[in-house]
Amino acid sequence: MADKSGSNTMWGGRFATGPDALMQAINASIDFDKRLAAEDIAASRAHAAMLGATGIVSDTDVAAIREGLLTVLSEIEAGDFVFSRELEDIHMNVESRLRELIGTAAGRLHTARSRNDQVATDFRLWVRGQCDAAIDGLTELMRALLAQAEAGADMVMPGFTHLQVAQPVTWGHHMLAYVEMLDRDRGRFRDARARMNESPLGAAALAGTSFPIDRETTAQALGFDRPMANSLDAVSDRDFALEFLSAAAITATHLSRFAEELVIWSTAQFRFVSLSDRFSTGSSIMPQKKNPDAAELIRAKPGRINGALVALLTVMKGLPLAYSKDMQEDKEQVFDAADSLMIALAAMAGMASDVVPQAERMHAAAAAGFSTATDLADWLVRRLGLPFREAHHVTGALVKRAEAKGVDLHELTLGEMQSEHPGITREVYDVLGVENSVASRMSYGGTAPEQVRAQAARWRAALA
Amino acid sequence: MADKSGSNTMWGGRFATGPDALMQAINASIDFDKRLAAEDIAASRAHAAMLGATGIVSDTDVAAIREGLLTVLSEIEAGDFVFSRELEDIHMNVESRLRELIGTAAGRLHTARSRNDQVATDFRLWVRGQCDAAIDGLTELMRALLAQAEAGADMVMPGFTHLQVAQPVTWGHHMLAYVEMLDRDRGRFRDARARMNESPLGAAALAGTSFPIDRETTAQALGFDRPMANSLDAVSDRDFALEFLSAAAITATHLSRFAEELVIWSTAQFRFVSLSDRFSTGSSIMPQKKNPDAAELIRAKPGRINGALVALLTVMKGLPLAYSKDMQEDKEQVFDAADSLMIALAAMAGMASDVVPQAERMHAAAAAGFSTATDLADWLVRRLGLPFREAHHVTGALVKRAEAKGVDLHELTLGEMQSEHPGITREVYDVLGVENSVASRMSYGGTAPEQVRAQAARWRAALA
Amino acid sequence: MADKSGSNTMWGGRFATGPDALMQAINASIDFDKRLAAEDIAASRAHAAMLGATGIVSDTDVAAIREGLLTVLSEIEAGDFVFSRELEDIHMNVESRLRELIGTAAGRLHTARSRNDQVATDFRLWVRGQCDAAIDGLTELMRALLAQAEAGADMVMPGFTHLQVAQPVTWGHHMLAYVEMLDRDRGRFRDARARMNESPLGAAALAGTSFPIDRETTAQALGFDRPMANSLDAVSDRDFALEFLSAAAITATHLSRFAEELVIWSTAQFRFVSLSDRFSTGSSIMPQKKNPDAAELIRAKPGRINGALVALLTVMKGLPLAYSKDMQEDKEQVFDAADSLMIALAAMAGMASDVVPQAERMHAAAAAGFSTATDLADWLVRRLGLPFREAHHVTGALVKRAEAKGVDLHELTLGEMQSEHPGITREVYDVLGVENSVASRMSYGGTAPEQVRAQAARWRAALA
Amino acid sequence: MADKSGSNTMWGGRFATGPDALMQAINASIDFDKRLAAEDIAASRAHAAMLGATGIVSDTDVAAIREGLLTVLSEIEAGDFVFSRELEDIHMNVESRLRELIGTAAGRLHTARSRNDQVATDFRLWVRGQCDAAIDGLTELMRALLAQAEAGADMVMPGFTHLQVAQPVTWGHHMLAYVEMLDRDRGRFRDARARMNESPLGAAALAGTSFPIDRETTAQALGFDRPMANSLDAVSDRDFALEFLSAAAITATHLSRFAEELVIWSTAQFRFVSLSDRFSTGSSIMPQKKNPDAAELIRAKPGRINGALVALLTVMKGLPLAYSKDMQEDKEQVFDAADSLMIALAAMAGMASDVVPQAERMHAAAAAGFSTATDLADWLVRRLGLPFREAHHVTGALVKRAEAKGVDLHELTLGEMQSEHPGITREVYDVLGVENSVASRMSYGGTAPEQVRAQAARWRAALA
Repeated sequence: MADKSGSNTMWGGRFATGPDALMQAINASIDFDKRLAAEDIAASRAHAAMLGATGIVSDTDVAAIREGLLTVLSEIEAGDFVFSRELEDIHMNVESRLRELIGTAAGRLHTARSRNDQVATDFRLWVRGQCDAAIDGLTELMRALLAQAEAGADMVMPGFTHLQVAQPVTWGHHMLAYVEMLDRDRGRFRDARARMNESPLGAAALAGTSFPIDRETTAQALGFDRPMANSLDAVSDRDFALEFLSAAAITATHLSRFAEELVIWSTAQFRFVSLSDRFSTGSSIMPQKKNPDAAELIRAKPGRINGALVALLTVMKGLPLAYSKDMQEDKEQVFDAADSLMIALAAMAGMASDVVPQAERMHAAAAAGFSTATDLADWLVRRLGLPFREAHHVTGALVKRAEAKGVDLHELTLGEMQSEHPGITREVYDVLGVENSVASRMSYGGTAPEQVRAQAARWRAALA
Repeated sequence: MADKSGSNTMWGGRFATGPDALMQAINASIDFDKRLAAEDIAASRAHAAMLGATGIVSDTDVAAIREGLLTVLSEIEAGDFVFSRELEDIHMNVESRLRELIGTAAGRLHTARSRNDQVATDFRLWVRGQCDAAIDGLTELMRALLAQAEAGADMVMPGFTHLQVAQPVTWGHHMLAYVEMLDRDRGRFRDARARMNESPLGAAALAGTSFPIDRETTAQALGFDRPMANSLDAVSDRDFALEFLSAAAITATHLSRFAEELVIWSTAQFRFVSLSDRFSTGSSIMPQKKNPDAAELIRAKPGRINGALVALLTVMKGLPLAYSKDMQEDKEQVFDAADSLMIALAAMAGMASDVVPQAERMHAAAAAGFSTATDLADWLVRRLGLPFREAHHVTGALVKRAEAKGVDLHELTLGEMQSEHPGITREVYDVLGVENSVASRMSYGGTAPEQVRAQAARWRAALA
Repeated sequence: MADKSGSNTMWGGRFATGPDALMQAINASIDFDKRLAAEDIAASRAHAAMLGATGIVSDTDVAAIREGLLTVLSEIEAGDFVFSRELEDIHMNVESRLRELIGTAAGRLHTARSRNDQVATDFRLWVRGQCDAAIDGLTELMRALLAQAEAGADMVMPGFTHLQVAQPVTWGHHMLAYVEMLDRDRGRFRDARARMNESPLGAAALAGTSFPIDRETTAQALGFDRPMANSLDAVSDRDFALEFLSAAAITATHLSRFAEELVIWSTAQFRFVSLSDRFSTGSSIMPQKKNPDAAELIRAKPGRINGALVALLTVMKGLPLAYSKDMQEDKEQVFDAADSLMIALAAMAGMASDVVPQAERMHAAAAAGFSTATDLADWLVRRLGLPFREAHHVTGALVKRAEAKGVDLHELTLGEMQSEHPGITREVYDVLGVENSVASRMSYGGTAPEQVRAQAARWRAALA
Repeated sequence: MADKSGSNTMWGGRFATGPDALMQAINASIDFDKRLAAEDIAASRAHAAMLGATGIVSDTDVAAIREGLLTVLSEIEAGDFVFSRELEDIHMNVESRLRELIGTAAGRLHTARSRNDQVATDFRLWVRGQCDAAIDGLTELMRALLAQAEAGADMVMPGFTHLQVAQPVTWGHHMLAYVEMLDRDRGRFRDARARMNESPLGAAALAGTSFPIDRETTAQALGFDRPMANSLDAVSDRDFALEFLSAAAITATHLSRFAEELVIWSTAQFRFVSLSDRFSTGSSIMPQKKNPDAAELIRAKPGRINGALVALLTVMKGLPLAYSKDMQEDKEQVFDAADSLMIALAAMAGMASDVVPQAERMHAAAAAGFSTATDLADWLVRRLGLPFREAHHVTGALVKRAEAKGVDLHELTLGEMQSEHPGITREVYDVLGVENSVASRMSYGGTAPEQVRAQAARWRAALA
C-alpha cells in the first residue's frame, strides 16, 4: 500500500493562481464528497425510476439514465473514474459523466430535484449505513467480551474505586460491564437510525415542487420508512448527523475507558493482562517492552470524535433556514468520526479476543489490602444484627489488629476476633476469602460467579 | 427577589485557613448536589421499604426511617433545612438529620447500599425528570408554532438559501419546519429516558451485596423498568447524562436557528416580524428600538450546553472502572444545561406565541428578485417538454429581458415571452405570481397552503 | 485539477485481510505525516552536521548523509517519492530511502536521537512555520480592511447593538474595529511562536543521551532560540500545538463575525454591500441572487478549528509522561486547522478588497429610527447642564412628538423643541444630523472621521 | 460553613408568575455579575474623577459620587448589601444604592458612559486579576515541584513511554519537566494580561462620545497601559476572555497529567508515592485504602475548563458588531473556569509539597525490564564504532541471553558478553547499572543528576 505524493506546499502555489483558484479551493467538495458516490447513484436511480413511473420523463430516457448510472458506478468502483474539481461536487461529477455516456437525456434526471435535497438524501443514506456498521462493530466487540466473561466468570480480580483496590470482583463481571455499556451504544445507533430513516428526496430546493412526483415510491426504493413531511426541514437540518456523532462520542468514551484499563493492566507493575503481539509494538532490544499502541490510539479517539461533534454543533448553531453553504462542512467531520469509530471498534474487538488475563496476578492483588473488610462488616450486620456504623467500628479494630500482626483478616484467630466482639463465630471465616467474598454477592447483577454466568447466558442468547 | 451576599474574594480567605479548608472546598459537593434532595429521599424510602419487606431491617425501624425521611423532605421544601459543608454531600446531610430525628435506627438505612449506587440512583432519577420536562417544554413550543402555522398557512414569505431570496414559501410552512425538528428532539429525549430507566440501586459499592435484597421492588417503587444487570456498570457509567446533554445540545441548536431568524427578521431592514414587548427591551429615548434580548440569549444557549457536553465527555474519557472521584463533576454540568434548556424552551414558547408576522413586508420581499424564475423553468419542462438545462437557458434570457426593462417576470408581455421561446402560452402567467408559485408546490411536504394545512391538521391531532 | 480515486469502501477490504492490516491501518501515520517531510530532512541535516562537528560520526559519513538527504528532499518535492505505509511514518520513509541512496552510512544518522525527539522537532518546526503564515495572512487582511477604512472614513452607516440601529458610525470605523482584533490575533501568533521556538532535538527517547552532542548547534541551525531544558518535557508536551490552535480558534471567531456581517449586509433587505463575483456564486436564472458562499464557509470555519482544539485538548488530558501513542493524534488536527485558517484568511482578504459598500443605503439606514437621540440627550447635558436622567426624559418626549408628527428629530421646529425644554437653542440642530453626530464623537477611538483618519494613518504606518 | 436553601423546583414556581418573571429570569445577570462589584466601583470612581478633572461634572458632585461609591463598596464587602434582581445587573444595583446615599448627583456618574463600555471595563479588570492569580498559583506550584526536584535530583525512577518502563530517569528530572510546562503556562497568562491591558472605558455605547473625556487618565487610574483605539472593538470583542480560557485549558491539561500520574503511582501495584492524608480520603475499615480524591478532581478539571472555552467560542461565533445580548453569557463561564483553575493550582501545590516518593520501589522498577539496554547499545556505538543498527542487533542478542538465563544485563559475564561481540570490554559494566545509566545522560537537559541539579539551581534563582 504505497502512495505517490507531491509537494507539501498545499496552498502556496494554488493561491498564486489567483482568486478563482482560491474560490475553487474553498468551494469545491469533490475531494471528500466522492465518498457519497454509491449513495448518490442509488438515489438518482430511484429518482429516475419514479420520474418514469409518474410519466414526468419518458421510459426510454429513464432506462438510459438508470443504465448509464450503473456504468458510472462500476467505473468508480473500478477506480477508473476521473474526479474533477472543476465540477465541484459528486453530483456534478456523476451527472457530467452520465451526459458523456448517454447524451442529453442525462439532462432530464435533475427534473423535480435540486442539489439541496440530493445531498441531504445521499448523506442521510451514508450515515444510515454507518449506523448499521457501528451496530455490527459493537456486536463483534460484545461477542469478544462475552467470550472473555464466560471463560473468566469465576476468575477473581480486584474491583477498584479510585484505582484503589476496593472489593474483589470477577473478570467475567468486569467484561460484562462493558457489554452492558456497548449494548446501550447499539440502542443509540438503532434509535438514531430509526429517526433519520425518512427521505428528503423530493423536497427540491426548499419548497417542494410542482411536478407530480411520488415521494413514497422513492422513499421505499431507498429503504426509507417514509418521506419527510416538511420540505424546508428536509434540506435544512442535519440533526441526524449530530445524533450519529453523539452516539459515536459516547461509544468512543466507553472504548477509551477499556483502553485505559488495558494500558494500566499491561504495565510491569500491574501485569493483570498480556496483550497480543498483533496489537502491540515491541522494542528490538527490550524484549519485555510491549507497547500497547492500539489501546493508546483507541484511548485517544474520543479526541477526534468529540472534536467532530463540537465542529458540527458549532457550524449549525444559529443558521437561518433553509440551506446555507456553511452546511457543506458537515461531511468531513462525520466521515472522519465514522472511520475513527469503525477502526477503533475493530481493533478493540481484536484486542478483546486476544487479551490473556493473568489469573494469579489478579487474584493476589484482589486478596491484598483487606479487600474483604466490607464482607466482614456486612457479616456483623447480617448475623449479629449490629447497626451498620457499629459493625464498621468493630471491623476497623480487627483490621488494625491484623495490620499490626502483619497478617490478613482470615489469618486472625477466632479468639482475636472475639476479643473485639464476643458474638463472632467460626462462620465468619466463610466470608473472608476472596472466593467467598465474590460468591456471596448474589444480588441481581452482582459479581457472584453464579450471577455472572446467568448474565453471560442471557447475552449468549441475545448475541446468537 | 433579592439576595444578600458577602465578599467577592472567593478563595482568598478560605484557603488561608489551610489545606483542610482547601480539601473541603475541592471535595464537598453539597453546594450543588442538594438539588438531588427529593430524589435522594425517594430512593432512600424505597430502599428502606425493601429492607423491611425482605426482613433485613425490622418493620419498626423501617417505619421510623420512612417517616423521618418525610420530615427531612418537608424541612427542605420549607427552606428550613440547614445544609452543612462538613457533611460533604446531600446523602450525608440527609442521613445526619435523620439520625437527629429518629436516633440510631437511622444507621440501618445504609445497609446493603453504598454512596456509589445511591448517587447513581439519585442522579438518574433527576435526569429522567428533566427528560420529561424537556418533552413538556418542547410540546408547548410546538403548540405555539402550530398555532402560527395554522394562522399563516397561506401567508407568503421568501424562502431563503444563503439568506438570499430563493423561492416563495409560506409562513405556516416555515413554522412547521421547526415543529418537525422539535418533534425529533422529543423523540431523542424519549429514547434517552427509556434507555436510562433502569435502577442502579442495589449495585452497592461496585460488586453487589451479600444481603438478600430485592432490586426489582426498589426499581418498581422508583418507576424504573428494571434493575441494571451489572453492578460495576451501574456505578461507573454516566452515559445517561451524556445522552441527555447530547439531546439538549441538538435541541438548543434548533432553538438557536429560530432565534437567529427572529433577530434578523426584527431588524429595521427586514421587519418581517414584530416581537412582543414581553421578550424585548427598549430604549427610553429610541422608541423604535426593540432589542430582541430573549432571542439573543436563546441563540447563545448552545454555548453553555455544548460546553457542558464537552465537559462531561472530557471527564469520562479514559476513566477506569468503577467509581472515580472525577465523576463528581457530572452534576453541575447537567444542572446548568438543563436549566438553560428549560428556560430557553419556555422563553421561545412565549416568543413564538407573541410574534406577529408582517404579512405585507414578507409578501413584498417574496415577490422581488425574480423569485418565481424556477417556476417558469419548471413550467417550460412540464408543459413544453424542454430538457431541464434548456429550460434554464430560456428562463435566464427572460429574466435578463425583464431586468433590462425594469419589470418583474409576470410583467413581460406574451410576445416578449414568445420571442425567447415560441411555445410559451398565456398559461405561463399562472405560475409567475408568488401565490401561484406556492400553490403549485403540491408535492408531499411542499409549501402549498393545501399541503401546509394538511400537515398542520396532522400536528393538531398529534398535539391534542 | 483532477484526482483518480478508487473504491469508497474504506475499511471493508482492508480489515478482511486480518489484524495485521488493521494494526497497520490504526498505527501508520505516513498518510498524514508526510507533510513534515521538509522539516524532517532539515532537522536530520542539522543533526548530522552536529554529529560530524562533535566527532560522533565521521565527516565522510556526515557528508554522504547530508547530500543524500537533499536528494530525498528533491525527490519528494518533484513528486517522485514513493511513500510506503509499511515504513509507518515519514522518519522511516526518509531514512529507508537514504539507505538505498548512500548505503550503511545512513544507519549512523539516528545516533544520539530517537523518533520521539525527531517528531517533536519536525512538528514544532511545522507549527512555527504556520505561525508565520498566519501572521502574513492576517497582515494581508488588515491591509485590505485598512484600504476600506481609508476610503470610507466618513461614510456613514448604522452602528448596531442587538442588530438594531443604535447610533451612526462610519464604515471606516467599523473596518478598523476588525483591524484591531486581527492585530491582537497577530500578537497571539507571535507570542506562541516565541514560546515554542525551543529545540527538542537531543532529548532522545526521553532522558537525553550519553553521546557528547551539542544541542545549541542544532538549535541554532534550525532557527530555534535555544534547546529545551528538560528532555522529558521536550518529548511529552504538545502545548505549542494547543496554543497555535487556540490562537487559530480566536482568529477564526473574528473572521466569522465579519463573515456573518457580510452575509447579512448582502441580503436584499440590507443591501449595505455588494460582494464581488469572485467570492460568490450566482444562479443561472436568478440574476440578482448572489450567494455569499465564501463568507458562509468562513463563517463555518470556527467549527472545524474549535473542533480541532477540543480534539487535541481531549487527547492530551491526563496522559502520563513521557511519550504515549495517543500523541500521534496531534498532527491531523493541526494540519486541518492550519489549512482552514490560511484559506479563510486568504479568502477574507480577497473579499475585503473587493467588497463595495453602498453608501446611500447605509446612510439612509443610519438616519432612520431617531438614531441621533442620544446626541440630543448628550447636548442637553453638555449645554444645559441637565442631569443625565432628566436629559433622557426630555429627549424621550421630543422623540415621541416627532414620531407622532411623522418626522425625524431635526425636522421639529425650535418652538416644538422649546415646549419640552425652554433652554433649547438653535445650536441643537448641529448635533441632530447623522454627519454631525459622527463628527461629534471625537473621543479617542471614537467614530468621528477625524479620529478614524488618525487611526487609519497609524495603521498605514504600522503596516507599511 | 452552612447554607440555608429552599426548594429544588427552580423554574416551576417562577415561570408560573408569567412572562415577566420569565424574562427577568433569562435577562437578569445580577446573580453572577455581582462578582464584578469591586471592579465596577473602581471603574466608576476613576470615571468620576476624570469627569471632574475635565470639567464635565462639578467637583462637588464628583466628591460626593466618589465618597458614596466607597460606602457602597464597604457595604458589599461587609455583606450588608441587598442585591436586587429587579435592578438586573451590578451596574444598576450600585448606581441605585448610590442614589439612595447621595441623591441626584448620582445621576451624573453615567455621563459620557454606557453600560457597554462599563461592563467591558469591569470584566477586563476582573480577568486581568485572574491572570495575576493564575501566575501566583503557578509559581507556588513550581516552587513545590522544585523542592521535590532538589531533594530527589538523583533518586532513580523508571522513565516511561506507553506506560512501559523505557529508561531510568530521576525523580528530580520528572518534577522539573512539570516546572518547564508550568513556566510556559505563566508566560501565556503574562502575554494574555499584557494584551488585554487596554481600557475600554470611554467607548460609550459603541461610537465614542461627544463629551471632552480624557481616556488616558481613566486608563492610567485603572492600571491599564492605554485606552483601546477603536470604540466598536472595545465593546464588541471578548478575545481577552477567550485567551484567558485558552491559557487556563492548557494549564489544566498539564495539571491533569500530573494528577493522572499521582493516581497511578499511588496504586497498590505501583506504590511509587505516598500521598498525604490531607488530600486523600480513607476508608474507615480499609486502612491501606487512600483514595486520591484531590488528584482525581484535578484530573477532571480540564472538563469544565475546556467546556467553558467551547461555550464562549460558540457564543462569540458569527456575532455581528457591536454589542449583542449573547455576550452576557461570557461571565459565568470565565468565573467558573477561573475558580476551577485556582483551586486546582492550590490543591496541586499542596499535594506536590506533601507527596513522598518511595525511592526503593521506584529504583526496583527502574532496574527491571532491561531498562539499560539502550545504554548498552549506545556504548557499542560509542566505544566500538558499530553502526547504530548493528549495535542494536548485538544488544538484542545479549538481552535474549540474559533473559534465558534469568538475570539482568549486568549479571552476564564478560565472556558471555564477548561471545556476542569480541570487542566488548569490562568497561561496559559502567553503563549497565541504573545509576550509571542516568549519570551518563549528560546532554543538556538530560536526566543526569548533575544536569538536574544545574536546572534546579537555575529555577531556584528564577523563583527566588
